[in-house]
Amino acid sequence: MIYFDSDYMAGAHPDVMRRLVETNAEQTVGYGCDGYTAHAAELIRNACGLPDAKVHFLVGGTQTNATVIDGLLSRHEGVLAAESGHINVHEAGAIEATGHKVLTLPQKEGKVAAEDVRKYIRDFYSDDTYEHMVAPGMLYISFPTEYGAIYSLSELEALSEVCHEAGIPLFIDGARLGYGLAAKGNDVTLKDIARLSDVFYIGGTKVGALFGEAVVVTRPGLLPHFTPLVKQHGAMLAKGRLLGVQFAALFEDGLYERISQNTVRLAEKLKDGFTAKGYETAVDSPTNQQFFRLPNEVIDRLKENASFEMWGPRGETVSTVRFVTGWTTTDEEVEMLIGLL
Amino acid sequence: MIYFDSDYMAGAHPDVMRRLVETNAEQTVGYGCDGYTAHAAELIRNACGLPDAKVHFLVGGTQTNATVIDGLLSRHEGVLAAESGHINVHEAGAIEATGHKVLTLPQKEGKVAAEDVRKYIRDFYSDDTYEHMVAPGMLYISFPTEYGAIYSLSELEALSEVCHEAGIPLFIDGARLGYGLAAKGNDVTLKDIARLSDVFYIGGTKVGALFGEAVVVTRPGLLPHFTPLVKQHGAMLAKGRLLGVQFAALFEDGLYERISQNTVRLAEKLKDGFTAKGYETAVDSPTNQQFFRLPNEVIDRLKENASFEMWGPRGETVSTVRFVTGWTTTDEEVEMLIGLL
Amino acid sequence: MIYFDSDYMAGAHPDVMRRLVETNAEQTVGYGCDGYTAHAAELIRNACGLPDAKVHFLVGGTQTNATVIDGLLSRHEGVLAAESGHINVHEAGAIEATGHKVLTLPQKEGKVAAEDVRKYIRDFYSDDTYEHMVAPGMLYISFPTEYGAIYSLSELEALSEVCHEAGIPLFIDGARLGYGLAAKGNDVTLKDIARLSDVFYIGGTKVGALFGEAVVVTRPGLLPHFTPLVKQHGAMLAKGRLLGVQFAALFEDGLYERISQNTVRLAEKLKDGFTAKGYETAVDSPTNQQFFRLPNEVIDRLKENASFEMWGPRGETVSTVRFVTGWTTTDEEVEMLIGLL
Amino acid sequence: MIYFDSDYMAGAHPDVMRRLVETNAEQTVGYGCDGYTAHAAELIRNACGLPDAKVHFLVGGTQTNATVIDGLLSRHEGVLAAESGHINVHEAGAIEATGHKVLTLPQKEGKVAAEDVRKYIRDFYSDDTYEHMVAPGMLYISFPTEYGAIYSLSELEALSEVCHEAGIPLFIDGARLGYGLAAKGNDVTLKDIARLSDVFYIGGTKVGALFGEAVVVTRPGLLPHFTPLVKQHGAMLAKGRLLGVQFAALFEDGLYERISQNTVRLAEKLKDGFTAKGYETAVDSPTNQQFFRLPNEVIDRLKENASFEMWGPRGETVSTVRFVTGWTTTDEEVEMLIGLL
Repeated sequence: MIYFDSDYMAGAHPDVMRRLVETNAEQTVGYGCDGYTAHAAELIRNACGLPDAKVHFLVGGTQTNATVIDGLLSRHEGVLAAESGHINVHEAGAIEATGHKVLTLPQKEGKVAAEDVRKYIRDFYSDDTYEHMVAPGMLYISFPTEYGAIYSLSELEALSEVCHEAGIPLFIDGARLGYGLAAKGNDVTLKDIARLSDVFYIGGTKVGALFGEAVVVTRPGLLPHFTPLVKQHGAMLAKGRLLGVQFAALFEDGLYERISQNTVRLAEKLKDGFTAKGYETAVDSPTNQQFFRLPNEVIDRLKENASFEMWGPRGETVSTVRFVTGWTTTDEEVEMLIGLL
Repeated sequence: MIYFDSDYMAGAHPDVMRRLVETNAEQTVGYGCDGYTAHAAELIRNACGLPDAKVHFLVGGTQTNATVIDGLLSRHEGVLAAESGHINVHEAGAIEATGHKVLTLPQKEGKVAAEDVRKYIRDFYSDDTYEHMVAPGMLYISFPTEYGAIYSLSELEALSEVCHEAGIPLFIDGARLGYGLAAKGNDVTLKDIARLSDVFYIGGTKVGALFGEAVVVTRPGLLPHFTPLVKQHGAMLAKGRLLGVQFAALFEDGLYERISQNTVRLAEKLKDGFTAKGYETAVDSPTNQQFFRLPNEVIDRLKENASFEMWGPRGETVSTVRFVTGWTTTDEEVEMLIGLL
Repeated sequence: MIYFDSDYMAGAHPDVMRRLVETNAEQTVGYGCDGYTAHAAELIRNACGLPDAKVHFLVGGTQTNATVIDGLLSRHEGVLAAESGHINVHEAGAIEATGHKVLTLPQKEGKVAAEDVRKYIRDFYSDDTYEHMVAPGMLYISFPTEYGAIYSLSELEALSEVCHEAGIPLFIDGARLGYGLAAKGNDVTLKDIARLSDVFYIGGTKVGALFGEAVVVTRPGLLPHFTPLVKQHGAMLAKGRLLGVQFAALFEDGLYERISQNTVRLAEKLKDGFTAKGYETAVDSPTNQQFFRLPNEVIDRLKENASFEMWGPRGETVSTVRFVTGWTTTDEEVEMLIGLL
Repeated sequence: MIYFDSDYMAGAHPDVMRRLVETNAEQTVGYGCDGYTAHAAELIRNACGLPDAKVHFLVGGTQTNATVIDGLLSRHEGVLAAESGHINVHEAGAIEATGHKVLTLPQKEGKVAAEDVRKYIRDFYSDDTYEHMVAPGMLYISFPTEYGAIYSLSELEALSEVCHEAGIPLFIDGARLGYGLAAKGNDVTLKDIARLSDVFYIGGTKVGALFGEAVVVTRPGLLPHFTPLVKQHGAMLAKGRLLGVQFAALFEDGLYERISQNTVRLAEKLKDGFTAKGYETAVDSPTNQQFFRLPNEVIDRLKENASFEMWGPRGETVSTVRFVTGWTTTDEEVEMLIGLL
């Protein structure tokens, strides 16, 4: 069986795992106050070109989204997000559980448009009864999106501009950030992400770590009491240095980029193989998630030797499926999959 | 430098780490739906003597407390706990953040008395205005307590009885459960814990794992929608099998008990060394946390070569300090510490 | 100036006010434990044909919605509602503030269709990842809707059936219930509302009272700890008997129905006047809210002598406006308004 | 039967009620945007000597406390309050329901001491683990307290100073403010309350209104988004002018003070009567609540003709009872009560 279900099916990249093993017996203080964590934060600040940024390490994406959004919003505010945004769909109401509404925007391939954000805010404040409604207090986007799409630099700049005009922070969910940056045609750099957003995070769980998300607060003072909030959200790892050790491994010599590039290369190879055989993509994703419309009999045949997910309900004769590559995926596995078609 | 600050200063016990490395490249489904997790749950059910128990694996203690308590309480209820209980003092308001009040009880060495629980409940319902007050909806205790003390079997039975009389669940925080079970003079078994509580957890973070707490719901149907709640609380690990692998390592051949026994043995040795030199304990703890009243000059001298925590503010001439042993502690380290006195 | 802005612009109907004055100096216990409140509850139980129903009196609509929904849902659940539902749009996030997501359904004139509810629930549970999503835990509808529309008996029966099939309660926001029951063409009775819903409320604020909403829990045991929840939500009136006195006045000799019928009659007269002059309705409402598409110059002219609300943004040449009748509205006022056209 | 149970047993003072009746048929915009409300706010600003204060009118005390505290605190903060504070004891967990912990302080007759507040804050920030604890984010006190006691001007100044030193707001619950200001020996004026606090409220419910609390935000900009928060808390009255009309009646020609003074005078008369007969007070209250230790047989005898509350459980031979005077209380009633002794 070959696996294309998701990018979190295996443990950590061997280079990350080795560092965990090497440091395993060392004794350090807990809760991320150790030297490994400080070092990883410094590496990330450098990679972002933001010497004054604050970097916090959390365990997983849902808890990161909930903690950051809870920290950024006032009680009367909600978070703007694409209707398909992870926080709106797949986090079991974690945002609402902290008391905030997700205010939905139309989306295309998971992306929101700056003009829609501007319109939402303008319409909101031109409504006489706006004090009876939930104020848009921040914008959440994902890069890449839940459908694997990426924003262009000009799109990101426009979103950043509309947020700053309106005085609300822009938060970028980068659970798969590496794959977006490594995508063919991408013109956005990590420094752009850091420059254009107020808070974002660099996903580790899906890009080579056992777990871990590095939250970058780009402007000092924006989230002044984040540490107690992390604790309150149950998001503080006792052995916090495990996060520092992993992110140091990923950012010391370009491992994060190498994993991302190889994973995206294999996804491109997979896409090329499918399209060469005449199958159409359901979404035109340049990242490590690939979506195809396949005849049901092809799906059934593939399922005998490959594992992957249905995307939405099974159709009459044709259905949408998703293939995801990760750090464990090999050229041979992609070739085998294409061979099975 | 020798370290006695806490029991979460190093990584995982080598046997646990080895299993993580061995299984690292394997591909499994996420979110704890894998075979390792199922196996670990089965091992724990067997160890508890509860074939029908539900076992869930979460990452850390604060998130476990908040998720379980949120799941057990109705909106108008609060949780009874010792004034010194971890949920009341050191979780940054995680319980209140889910909307529930911590209703405090007097404590002795972190323990609450059955008669105090009974009195609280009786007084509550005999107050005409009780519908204007927060109803006691469950009892939280820790075994061992935050001061290292343990309940006797008869004390636990009395607490269980008063809870069940009142129709409220008993929840035991077992972040250091192993050390309580391994304590000299302890007459409580894991099966007793499982029999007398409604929900409890077996701490991994402080007993040999990288991280992880195994929640045991002793009665089926008690927490029927726990999985979405875990997700909502941001407490669901994407690569959930990491928890299964670790707990399987801990429970397959008695590793959890061996770690616990050796750690407690070293704590006893440490205590004997201190008391032999005439220093008095601040709490009479039979577990891996030891508290002493030491002259400040002794503390200052020890600090040159040993790392440990002050317990409360520094006194005029004498202060209280805490020494904690863990899976990394060696006989030599304890002897060195005593030698430093 | 004649006023058609809303149905809560004046105080209480004179008959209600007189009762408040008559009883003003009496001394009774607080918090709704008095005889007036018990008497009003009995009158309402009788009117509903539900001798075992529990009746609670709260002050306003938003607090009633938040308290009831908070009481009915488990923590992992959300409330299904029309996209245009008051709880989704105009309550400043009161539902989310209690931790629950509003799950939106398509609407027509503010109404939801049973088939859409059924589809939502079926799709939800057929999604493999449903435990990562917010479970539909109840259905909220308004009768009449925010656009003045009413459900037919068969539509209500279908909604009730789909809810009970799915095991979720049906909650009806009856802030303007009287006007729905008095509508031309309505085939639903108060007893039907009581029989088909699990919880509903009879709006007083907009139908002749100074304030007050009567919550009817149709099945005993459904909201067992509602009183402390009302207190927790800050929705318990100290001088609770003010609610009892008012609802007794409204329900003792049919005043609630008389107010409703007269108000709806005047709305019909207003609608007839407008349509006779060739103006089209924006929504075909049979209740006390009337929506018209009017040329902007007509709107501007009317505004000189009449007060009413724009409904949505001003259009290029034509805009939508709302006229609302209430217990204070007179035949003369309606005639004056039509005369102004 | 004569009633001394509480100060919210009757309706409104006749002068307040008359104004409600006089204005009953008028049409005004809702939600407190009317002229009566603006006028009442202006009267209160003048009475407070704070021309820039913001004044908001809410319905009841619990909802006012919850809304103000929710507005003042950040998510990681809790509210300091006397252990006996209404928010800690008798609001069914309303504060915790908004996610905040009540941090308790020792009390004497319901009062907290500035030195205890200072010590709490100093101890908190000198604890190394303070980021794992709930930060003290504001101070809540009541004037008069739940036991009828009042702070002296110097005590209030000391509390104000310690709060402002620590950078946290001081919030005064004035549910019975009038009775405190009218107390014999009181040296605090309304202007002092306004000058020394950041937010406080002037209770109407217990001092002559049907209902209503006037929240005074003494510093502009302190609660910038209070209106949507009031709506979110379900605390916004649709017919908001009812609050404005009542508070205008209370503040136009000194009615609030006259009610307060007469009520306190009767309480003093009652106290004098009891002490003259040799009964001792349980609390030395100078306000409208009087607490006595009475032999049970006296209590039983009084109960035949008078209604009042037990304060705590019935004792062996002697119990504590509370007598409360209000705007309805007459000299004759007090004389009758004393005569019954």
